[in-house]
Amino acid sequence: MQPLNVGLGNRSYPVYIGKGLLGDIDHWRRMSAQLKLPQRLLIVSDRNVANLYLQPLQHALKTFDSTTCVLEPGEANKNLAAMTTILDELIAGGFQRDAAVIALGGGVIGDIAGFAAACFMRGIRCVQIPTTLLAQVDSSVGGKTGVNHKLGKNLIGAFHQPVAVVIDTDTLATLELREVRAGLAEVIKYGCIYDADFFAWLETHMKELLALETTALARAIRRSCEIKATIVARDEKEAGERALLNFGHSFGHAIEQVTGYTRWLHGEAVAIGMLMACSLSHRMGLLSAAEVARVSALLGAAGLPACTDDAPVDALLQAMQLDKKNAAGKQRLILLNGIGASEIRSDCSSADIRQAILDYTGS
Amino acid sequence: MQPLNVGLGNRSYPVYIGKGLLGDIDHWRRMSAQLKLPQRLLIVSDRNVANLYLQPLQHALKTFDSTTCVLEPGEANKNLAAMTTILDELIAGGFQRDAAVIALGGGVIGDIAGFAAACFMRGIRCVQIPTTLLAQVDSSVGGKTGVNHKLGKNLIGAFHQPVAVVIDTDTLATLELREVRAGLAEVIKYGCIYDADFFAWLETHMKELLALETTALARAIRRSCEIKATIVARDEKEAGERALLNFGHSFGHAIEQVTGYTRWLHGEAVAIGMLMACSLSHRMGLLSAAEVARVSALLGAAGLPACTDDAPVDALLQAMQLDKKNAAGKQRLILLNGIGASEIRSDCSSADIRQAILDYTGS
Repeated sequence: MQPLNVGLGNRSYPVYIGKGLLGDIDHWRRMSAQLKLPQRLLIVSDRNVANLYLQPLQHALKTFDSTTCVLEPGEANKNLAAMTTILDELIAGGFQRDAAVIALGGGVIGDIAGFAAACFMRGIRCVQIPTTLLAQVDSSVGGKTGVNHKLGKNLIGAFHQPVAVVIDTDTLATLELREVRAGLAEVIKYGCIYDADFFAWLETHMKELLALETTALARAIRRSCEIKATIVARDEKEAGERALLNFGHSFGHAIEQVTGYTRWLHGEAVAIGMLMACSLSHRMGLLSAAEVARVSALLGAAGLPACTDDAPVDALLQAMQLDKKNAAGKQRLILLNGIGASEIRSDCSSADIRQAILDYTGS
Repeated sequence: MQPLNVGLGNRSYPVYIGKGLLGDIDHWRRMSAQLKLPQRLLIVSDRNVANLYLQPLQHALKTFDSTTCVLEPGEANKNLAAMTTILDELIAGGFQRDAAVIALGGGVIGDIAGFAAACFMRGIRCVQIPTTLLAQVDSSVGGKTGVNHKLGKNLIGAFHQPVAVVIDTDTLATLELREVRAGLAEVIKYGCIYDADFFAWLETHMKELLALETTALARAIRRSCEIKATIVARDEKEAGERALLNFGHSFGHAIEQVTGYTRWLHGEAVAIGMLMACSLSHRMGLLSAAEVARVSALLGAAGLPACTDDAPVDALLQAMQLDKKNAAGKQRLILLNGIGASEIRSDCSSADIRQAILDYTGS
């Protein structure tokens, strides 16, 4: 199948989606010829993913000169120290500006490895091989890279587009169901903010998706990446429209932070955050109660949580103050204007925001 | 006087050059209105520069909401730890994406603060106020930011253009003469690589420059920045031509590294490096012995060293292997093709490179 194209002028790149791509020598050979990939590669992965997929990838890349850097898994390790480990490896290994980093793993690995590629010699190439549904439909496409600071998520980073994204749908077979559900939160997000038809399609195909039915999965991933690519092509550096992709994320990031990044997966926190944003949209007169119920039902059908009970509203509100989208002291939030349409607002009242949070914190 | 313009499309920016600009409230008021500078500023400086210029700058910025972050001075502190100090300050201080970093200092401060601005929330605005001649004619213009790794200089960094550069020629009055001489090395470089008339002008005005005569200094700074801006506008990310600005730097960086960054100032190491590059250009048949002698005489007139005696040739050759300009294992070097003309070559023989180094290492 033809790859998707992320259209960014001379930094455009293909997104390949298919079964078994990761270990497919012919795929890598064709791709490498098209993209003029360098011989020298640093594969960055984490212990869990490396156990499953490093060997097949190394086999597929056997004609390259590749080295591997394996990090500890988990969001708690997404910090400057992990990024420095990769940089040390690149520098000690004598890598040059024409080398490439291959990020093999979930969103955490993609973000750290992408950021290291952005900073090494002021930027070398990076290929993303996302192995979780969340990374496949979201973080691997669009060039956002970075690490967390103890005071907030993704506060340190760079825009650095990959030269290719390779999505192997077979990798989802080894995901825990909880991880699949978390990825579906971002898939549902695209329906919410941009495509009512896709939202309706998700309502009728949730069972196939949870059963990892290949055709349905590939379609959901492709449409998600298409929507993301369209928005990123129009606003790469998030001057405006790209912020729509953060629907549910201001609340979600705050939930993750207040619960110490251990209680909820990113997608789960975003699911709860989307419900809060829907409630707020309803309070602002943008979304009907019936539409809120449809979003809630679809997230529920995906098996996502509807409420977090150990995140006090004041702590969440404070954490939201640090959100990168804020400007000139104003809280900027993404609201739905009906299902499939979204907008950036900075005129929400503190009372409405507080009440929207309280609706889903069980307090 | 009209500012110079660095032409980079929607990332173009002005370079202001003049006496007393740093503490000139009216200048900052006009500039801020033109550039729509934010209210919230983090001034980054080092202890030495802060003692001299922080107060006048704070006075000139008294209508802004500014915080200050003072680092330890010196190239040895140009590392990820110093950059993290700035990031911690930005994050703990609740700075948002619409804030700006003001880099007040020499090249080290400009590079670290610029890199922190590049990485904070994936990029906020930065104003450069270079206070050394070297930073004024070189590092503050062009958007190269970064820090050193223990295995090599500037191996970690980003391209992040400032929104303005403010060059106050009065700051040179407090520079040690040795620092002025080091800055003149980069000024001479521009004549060597790009402008034979400027080179000839420098030959006849070196005394005025060393005496910090204002008119001569402003002219030398302006012409240096013009040449840099022209080259950067044509090749921002150093895909090709921009590498010409690194004339003398592959050798120079190696000299700095092998001598532990303590023996020579950057400009001094570059001066020796330019002599090595001239010798190599002569060996390649590109530069006459008379031209080599003119470069050598001009560097000598500026009081720059002509030789380093504690850098063994093998150590220098090894350090040069890590140079960012190298590609596919090839050593890429900038050579002069006559005074005022330069080119990138990757066909120099190891024997010639070795001999060019030996010519100026006193061994």
